[in-house]
Amino acid sequence: MRLQLSTWPQVEDYLESSRGIIVPIGSTEQHGPTGLLGTDALCAEAVAVEAGKRAGIMVAPGIPVGMAVHHMTFAGSMTFRPSTLIAVVRDWVTGLAAHGFERFLFVNGHGGNIPTLQSAWYEIHCETREATDRGGKGRDLRFAVQNWWAGTQVKAYCDEVFGPADGSHATCGELSLMHFLYPDEAPTTAGLEPRVAPTSAYHDAEHFRRVHPDGRMGSDPSLANADHGGRLFDIAVTEALGRYETLMAEE
Amino acid sequence: MRLQLSTWPQVEDYLESSRGIIVPIGSTEQHGPTGLLGTDALCAEAVAVEAGKRAGIMVAPGIPVGMAVHHMTFAGSMTFRPSTLIAVVRDWVTGLAAHGFERFLFVNGHGGNIPTLQSAWYEIHCETREATDRGGKGRDLRFAVQNWWAGTQVKAYCDEVFGPADGSHATCGELSLMHFLYPDEAPTTAGLEPRVAPTSAYHDAEHFRRVHPDGRMGSDPSLANADHGGRLFDIAVTEALGRYETLMAEE
Amino acid sequence: MRLQLSTWPQVEDYLESSRGIIVPIGSTEQHGPTGLLGTDALCAEAVAVEAGKRAGIMVAPGIPVGMAVHHMTFAGSMTFRPSTLIAVVRDWVTGLAAHGFERFLFVNGHGGNIPTLQSAWYEIHCETREATDRGGKGRDLRFAVQNWWAGTQVKAYCDEVFGPADGSHATCGELSLMHFLYPDEAPTTAGLEPRVAPTSAYHDAEHFRRVHPDGRMGSDPSLANADHGGRLFDIAVTEALGRYETLMAEE
Amino acid sequence: MRLQLSTWPQVEDYLESSRGIIVPIGSTEQHGPTGLLGTDALCAEAVAVEAGKRAGIMVAPGIPVGMAVHHMTFAGSMTFRPSTLIAVVRDWVTGLAAHGFERFLFVNGHGGNIPTLQSAWYEIHCETREATDRGGKGRDLRFAVQNWWAGTQVKAYCDEVFGPADGSHATCGELSLMHFLYPDEAPTTAGLEPRVAPTSAYHDAEHFRRVHPDGRMGSDPSLANADHGGRLFDIAVTEALGRYETLMAEE
Amino acid sequence: MRLQLSTWPQVEDYLESSRGIIVPIGSTEQHGPTGLLGTDALCAEAVAVEAGKRAGIMVAPGIPVGMAVHHMTFAGSMTFRPSTLIAVVRDWVTGLAAHGFERFLFVNGHGGNIPTLQSAWYEIHCETREATDRGGKGRDLRFAVQNWWAGTQVKAYCDEVFGPADGSHATCGELSLMHFLYPDEAPTTAGLEPRVAPTSAYHDAEHFRRVHPDGRMGSDPSLANADHGGRLFDIAVTEALGRYETLMAEE
Amino acid sequence: MRLQLSTWPQVEDYLESSRGIIVPIGSTEQHGPTGLLGTDALCAEAVAVEAGKRAGIMVAPGIPVGMAVHHMTFAGSMTFRPSTLIAVVRDWVTGLAAHGFERFLFVNGHGGNIPTLQSAWYEIHCETREATDRGGKGRDLRFAVQNWWAGTQVKAYCDEVFGPADGSHATCGELSLMHFLYPDEAPTTAGLEPRVAPTSAYHDAEHFRRVHPDGRMGSDPSLANADHGGRLFDIAVTEALGRYETLMAEE
Ligand code: NI
Ligand code: NI
Ligand code: NI
Ligand code: NI
Ligand code: NI
Ligand code: NI
Repeated sequence: MRLQLSTWPQVEDYLESSRGIIVPIGSTEQHGPTGLLGTDALCAEAVAVEAGKRAGIMVAPGIPVGMAVHHMTFAGSMTFRPSTLIAVVRDWVTGLAAHGFERFLFVNGHGGNIPTLQSAWYEIHCETREATDRGGKGRDLRFAVQNWWAGTQVKAYCDEVFGPADGSHATCGELSLMHFLYPDEAPTTAGLEPRVAPTSAYHDAEHFRRVHPDGRMGSDPSLANADHGGRLFDIAVTEALGRYETLMAEE
Repeated sequence: MRLQLSTWPQVEDYLESSRGIIVPIGSTEQHGPTGLLGTDALCAEAVAVEAGKRAGIMVAPGIPVGMAVHHMTFAGSMTFRPSTLIAVVRDWVTGLAAHGFERFLFVNGHGGNIPTLQSAWYEIHCETREATDRGGKGRDLRFAVQNWWAGTQVKAYCDEVFGPADGSHATCGELSLMHFLYPDEAPTTAGLEPRVAPTSAYHDAEHFRRVHPDGRMGSDPSLANADHGGRLFDIAVTEALGRYETLMAEE
Repeated sequence: MRLQLSTWPQVEDYLESSRGIIVPIGSTEQHGPTGLLGTDALCAEAVAVEAGKRAGIMVAPGIPVGMAVHHMTFAGSMTFRPSTLIAVVRDWVTGLAAHGFERFLFVNGHGGNIPTLQSAWYEIHCETREATDRGGKGRDLRFAVQNWWAGTQVKAYCDEVFGPADGSHATCGELSLMHFLYPDEAPTTAGLEPRVAPTSAYHDAEHFRRVHPDGRMGSDPSLANADHGGRLFDIAVTEALGRYETLMAEE
Repeated sequence: MRLQLSTWPQVEDYLESSRGIIVPIGSTEQHGPTGLLGTDALCAEAVAVEAGKRAGIMVAPGIPVGMAVHHMTFAGSMTFRPSTLIAVVRDWVTGLAAHGFERFLFVNGHGGNIPTLQSAWYEIHCETREATDRGGKGRDLRFAVQNWWAGTQVKAYCDEVFGPADGSHATCGELSLMHFLYPDEAPTTAGLEPRVAPTSAYHDAEHFRRVHPDGRMGSDPSLANADHGGRLFDIAVTEALGRYETLMAEE
Repeated sequence: MRLQLSTWPQVEDYLESSRGIIVPIGSTEQHGPTGLLGTDALCAEAVAVEAGKRAGIMVAPGIPVGMAVHHMTFAGSMTFRPSTLIAVVRDWVTGLAAHGFERFLFVNGHGGNIPTLQSAWYEIHCETREATDRGGKGRDLRFAVQNWWAGTQVKAYCDEVFGPADGSHATCGELSLMHFLYPDEAPTTAGLEPRVAPTSAYHDAEHFRRVHPDGRMGSDPSLANADHGGRLFDIAVTEALGRYETLMAEE
Repeated sequence: MRLQLSTWPQVEDYLESSRGIIVPIGSTEQHGPTGLLGTDALCAEAVAVEAGKRAGIMVAPGIPVGMAVHHMTFAGSMTFRPSTLIAVVRDWVTGLAAHGFERFLFVNGHGGNIPTLQSAWYEIHCETREATDRGGKGRDLRFAVQNWWAGTQVKAYCDEVFGPADGSHATCGELSLMHFLYPDEAPTTAGLEPRVAPTSAYHDAEHFRRVHPDGRMGSDPSLANADHGGRLFDIAVTEALGRYETLMAEE
């Protein structure tokens, strides 16, 4: 159930039987010369929506931009300052919590979001704590994240079929998922040089571009295709649902 | 051209010939007992994307949540605090401006966003001005908004076919557009009481609910349908393109 | 009744019988080569104070600086960043609301304030809503704005006596009001070139100055005089009182 | 010269020969059962304006609300949070500095403003410093404050004519100045009980009201009158001008 | 009792019998060519800890960085922006207050902290006030500061033994205390030129360095030694305890 | 070399040969019924200072409070809101960077700090990026963190000597280090019930206390002692130096 495609009475009904919701969070950032800028946002939203559909879980609108300052030397990349992203997640959660949602599984498409996402949860917990200290109504909000690309089975699949050339940014896994989701949008990977991108630690955006000149980290995009993408999609949805169940089952 | 479905070299190419971009901004808020919560976000994004497709204009990812505090007494409604939305628009624009975008047409789906959106533009102009005062590189950013529902031809069409029962929230016009865009998601309007919702000024969320008990303002959703939606979509896209052309043509 | 000229027991008494207050908000910004920088602040304050005097309404101290970044290329202009102005209005209102004021009519002297003023109201409503969600005491704050220069009768008068040369910034109407309020401060308009200033859309402060080199927009200040100002003052006060009555009469 | 009563070319001219400006800062807060809420703002503004008139110094619009949280248990008192006041002073100064003002004498009417005013200056110096570190244009902004009531001669006069019953809040000195400035607004002090208010340290607003039940601290308002006020006004203006000269003469 | 060297049950026990706590606040900033950068932080912490030890008072961890922007042209100096320091003090206090601490004596080592520290207290009082206005649980937080170097007896001692060459920054008094606390860290003062540093008002960091080229203000560090430091330490501790007792004894 | 125990000329000298600095960051939070509240701050500072001493690296003052909201139901625990901690780290780094420091190794004592610390780095990179986009001077700041308790050799040692009863909060490892550093401050562990604390995921502070009633997570503090602490100290210092060398060696 997508919240955006529900009416308010439908949401009210849903809350009679469940306090859980899935929130997609992505990023709009370069994914190498052949990867689409929306990869992280579109993958996360697709996995979340499909998980919601399969299990009747409410899915909030996705956050399409993330914390991606290190990609800003590549055209089209966008980023939130961490302080902004904390405010965004805080408002996203606070609004939903006002209606009674209490369990939030973030389905995340971008590694760079993780620290700030967790900081945002802490910020919310601080607000709750301070309000409670002053006599405000308690609330029991719980947060978890499923980084779809890092699920045990997703990683196992990628290791098996892509090996080390899966890479760590603009990976074969996420590019495959995009081929599956957007089959008409596949730029050719012919002539990519080098075929397998270099790997290296990076610091700020200038440094990132210096050590990763075309934006990829360690990946060979020519290995990606829609068939792998379809398989990965199914695995990622299953793993997201598993994480959701664990969250809901906690005492 | 959707930025999310472009690669960074494609964005770099685009910037060789144009400095303009369209940014959809919507809201996730109740649209009466039969309207979908994502109406404002999904309509704005659809109009923007189609405009971009027709005229080869880059379209940024849309902002799916807006300033909608007065709807917060209805389940599922979300809102940014204005201060958050200013930060969001500021980061959205600042990131794109870093790559060279200078003309921003916001295609907006929600009246409540207008003041805060304009405030965000002013905030950006203040930053620019202060940086320039201290010797920073000048930049010539320009902003405009097309409220798709308020275009001259869109309004004329709605006046003609819906009359006063178009209403001012959860309008027949926007509900029609949603029927057109999401034909499978149409909740029945049978039994709506009253058929035409009351109209009244409102203040905060409690007050809004008191004077608009089911969330609609003045509308009769049973008049909405996909045929009207398709016609309105075409008109709205044309008007958005007209506004974009005016913005780009300014000296 | 001016709050600044009242004692605290007088304010306490006033609150026994009324929850309404008028708040002037202006701007300190260039008004062309012959207009005074304080025009927007001084006109708004004067209209508000006179309205308060005529009808026994409490009048808060005025906010003398507004959102005027587009005037910053002219010496002496001041501006709040929108984020600051939101904080200012928020504190202004929060303090007064702590004593029991619940209805706020802003008498505004500057068009550029409108979006940020409304954003500030929304910010306050967000705070109220969130506090109420956590069990805090409800409060029913309502806001309205009277842009004195844009009242129906004020506009009718200006259209009649000034015609199109009233302009849209440093208008004959507001300059006349200043002649009436500050008869000794009238700079000569002799030799103004061009007599009627150009009109044009504008973006940031550099752009504003480019298209409006002396700061005026469309006006011919030589048409302004104290007689028109006195008449306009009376009309503006009457219209402000009408708006206040409407606000207080709302259910 | 009041900036609000100047045109932008007049300010431009002024800046040819001087980089100095006077900024009044006051407060709107209870001044005991017979003192006016605007005392601190109106006194500061009057002293500043007269000083500007006598010596041809530009005077900015005054800040009418200050940091007065400890008075908030008395009706009509207003306060900025310190964080807001810092932003206000920062924007006030930044705007004026953009035009070339570099020396700022704040004529202050309220003791509670002093720490936050100084914090605001430091905040501005931090901004300057950081911008300069990144290669931004240097600027040499200097700030001073004249607390009009605490000038050597003002204090000497009050000690002589009022003795200890001058008090430390709602003092005979400031009440006298208000009698002089607003002769028609003088509430009677007949029947004040006790005649001389208690003195005590205070903490927050509840505590303040507990130890100072009618708002006065140590003063006997019946000693105040317009004659003393006129004399104090003259002394305060002279002392403010002395402070301004010192500031301008510094290397 | 140092909070950092206590267990949570020990703190719980302490709160059974006292609501008071001492908070050291210092600065990390240049102290002339022979003074250590940590002087203000280390002195304040040492005085606070010894006072706590003597009288069984809980001592919070110290704030090692303060508001010292005017020292930033000397290597190694650090500073908080005032807005950051307000947030720091606010969180420091809010956390401790959540457990029941209500009386906070700040033992301060740096004059530049005073305004911002007081602003932080006001910010906290504003929060308390606003929460109480909305029905939140009241709390009675009280703050005081002991500037150890400015105690009556400390000043008397320094006047007597150092005279005017004590100076006002990198003073003989604080340098002596450091000799006492860190006897192995004493840089030689041989060859200091001039022996007694100049005195002058200062504004921003550039100006400070211009008028105080080696960082000292008016002091002759060769007069400082560990014996004086030991005596000053004892006096400062006694005076801090006196201030604490006064704070705790207030009604 | 401790920055706090250096003079500004010594720091200036240091910067001639190195751009690296170590910054300790800890927390003040409950460590079970027998662990000291300052454990995380004091351990991190000790490891950092010793590393600096061994290798001649400058060590900044430590940040004694961290992000520890989940411990706030235990007396004496303190926390920064993440937004405050980001501002703190930002000011800490910005000040040091102004003098020329460019490589920052944070020696961290508390797992809960990691996400917010990384968010702070991103916030700094965003500031750098935006300033550079506007023509500001570039800077090449690089950050790394050494979580002393999580070093490969530290973990191996703890696994070997404590096994699973090392736990994950108030661990035998950190308690041992405190025994070594503060041998006189060791509360008895006699009678601890249960001897080995439970392990469980946690959410907010209420939940944490529910699942970890005495504050420990999985540890048996009776296994901790000063001998193990001394050995761990040595290993942790060595590992911190290794991490520093890697950071400095990066291209
Ligand atoms: Ni990705
Ligand atoms: Ni809508
Ligand atoms: Ni105007
Ligand atoms: Ni006063
Ligand atoms: Ni010092
Ligand atoms: Ni620990």
